Amino acid sequence: MTVPASFDDWMRNVQSTMEESLSSLLPEGKLASSSLHESMRYAVLDGGKRIRPLLVFATGYLFDAEKLALARAAAAVEMIHAYSLVHDDMPCMDNDVLRRGKPTVHVRFGEATALLAGDALQAQAFVVLSNQQCDPVLTVEMMRLLSEAAGAAGMCGGQAIDLASVGKSLTVNELENMHRLKTGALLTASVFLGAYCSKIPTEQEKNALNAYAKAIGLAFQVVDDILDVTADSADLGKTAGKDSADNKPTYVSLLGLEESRQLAEKLRNDAYAALSIFDEKADYLRQLADLVVRRKK
Amino acid sequence: MTVPASFDDWMRNVQSTMEESLSSLLPEGKLASSSLHESMRYAVLDGGKRIRPLLVFATGYLFDAEKLALARAAAAVEMIHAYSLVHDDMPCMDNDVLRRGKPTVHVRFGEATALLAGDALQAQAFVVLSNQQCDPVLTVEMMRLLSEAAGAAGMCGGQAIDLASVGKSLTVNELENMHRLKTGALLTASVFLGAYCSKIPTEQEKNALNAYAKAIGLAFQVVDDILDVTADSADLGKTAGKDSADNKPTYVSLLGLEESRQLAEKLRNDAYAALSIFDEKADYLRQLADLVVRRKK
Repeated sequence: MTVPASFDDWMRNVQSTMEESLSSLLPEGKLASSSLHESMRYAVLDGGKRIRPLLVFATGYLFDAEKLALARAAAAVEMIHAYSLVHDDMPCMDNDVLRRGKPTVHVRFGEATALLAGDALQAQAFVVLSNQQCDPVLTVEMMRLLSEAAGAAGMCGGQAIDLASVGKSLTVNELENMHRLKTGALLTASVFLGAYCSKIPTEQEKNALNAYAKAIGLAFQVVDDILDVTADSADLGKTAGKDSADNKPTYVSLLGLEESRQLAEKLRNDAYAALSIFDEKADYLRQLADLVVRRKK
Repeated sequence: MTVPASFDDWMRNVQSTMEESLSSLLPEGKLASSSLHESMRYAVLDGGKRIRPLLVFATGYLFDAEKLALARAAAAVEMIHAYSLVHDDMPCMDNDVLRRGKPTVHVRFGEATALLAGDALQAQAFVVLSNQQCDPVLTVEMMRLLSEAAGAAGMCGGQAIDLASVGKSLTVNELENMHRLKTGALLTASVFLGAYCSKIPTEQEKNALNAYAKAIGLAFQVVDDILDVTADSADLGKTAGKDSADNKPTYVSLLGLEESRQLAEKLRNDAYAALSIFDEKADYLRQLADLVVRRKK
């Protein structure tokens, strides 16, 4: 991927690369634990926008990382993302029945298998990372990045705040803090993993990537909240209107629809501004900011 | 720990070291996600025989590993073990209310928090390992060991077989295969982690450690099945007679009590035989084999 491709071609290329590499990095169905393996594959394959892998590859392109290392890092982060969806959808959490246009994992395989599939996907993410063929110093950094982003100081911590916030009125700052952990941490890790597949970024590069990731992480959530009230379930591939029905605080409920749209556009501009130290090799990252803000599902 | 201590002194020393290091390696209770942090600490601290940490330290003693590295590796494996108990006890799995003499995590904190606490503990195990201060080549090996042992090819895979086996009649070989994954994989990882804190073992050492771990892993499960029918809940700190009530296949149900006791004793001898290439520095491992087989809870 040294010759720049059009954004759409590049995106389709990453998405099909991911489908292949995820498939090869997940356990095959076999013997007595086949329903576990089948449910893991069901949760991960054939669906999703692959936003996190796209971020890994876009930063990887900027930093001249090798495709094989990027595919592994991207698969690891996508497995973490997929496991979090499986557990989120369970009856004791959001109790959702539709995801990516298909029955959720616990609906299809039962709750016990869904619980185990999520657990095993998280472990598999670290199996995949530990098999990276790059400098072990970089592999250890990737492990730290991903585990911190996934855990109590990242995604799980954000989920816990989310749980505690149902039916409460949050300020915009509190809402932002929740999303910074719940979805932002893993998006930020995705951006950094792409760099670490090649080298440890300079402080200036780290600051730029951080600011970019922070902006698109928030934009992602603001747009999610907008789509939750403006799109229908068929377009989203999940149950629309769920957050407002569940009385969860959202940007739309706090700011209204119009101001939320303005905020998403402002964050897109912030993402562009953060990337100003980079040349046109950061264009995939720039176009991903457009995609995150202007997506319809 | 260069001067050999008596086994009991050594064991108490490891156990109190673990209590301190686990406490310092778990997130403190703070702000909005405090119930997550509190539930993680509740699941891990102040309980358990710490068999896995003892195995890490015993092999670490044999291989002259540093105490700080061992404490981190042991904390990581104990966090994986603790998360698996939290998820196993949930209503959609074993639906158990008592663990280590206390209400289980979902009883105390609710199901959603128990699910998240388990998820966050798994991530925290990898955070802890990624912060090892040893040669990154060894750290990556430890990451691979632990993630493989925890995932679909290890603990989670064994759980899936266990789920699929309720109410079925298994052969002794099938039962052994289930336990080799469900509990054996993590016990084996514990034995190896202690070595990797110092160096990559030779092939001969690997074979010896593998044979030892296999024997005590099975012995552990055989003794668990014996205690499930011979001990009472107060001694066990968990609900006794649960497996037979749940119609789960056990060694006692397949072999009877007397033959199960003989098998446990045979496995203890196998563990000793496996360690024959090592001198008296492997005595803590030998005494752990005694402990595993002769424990009363």
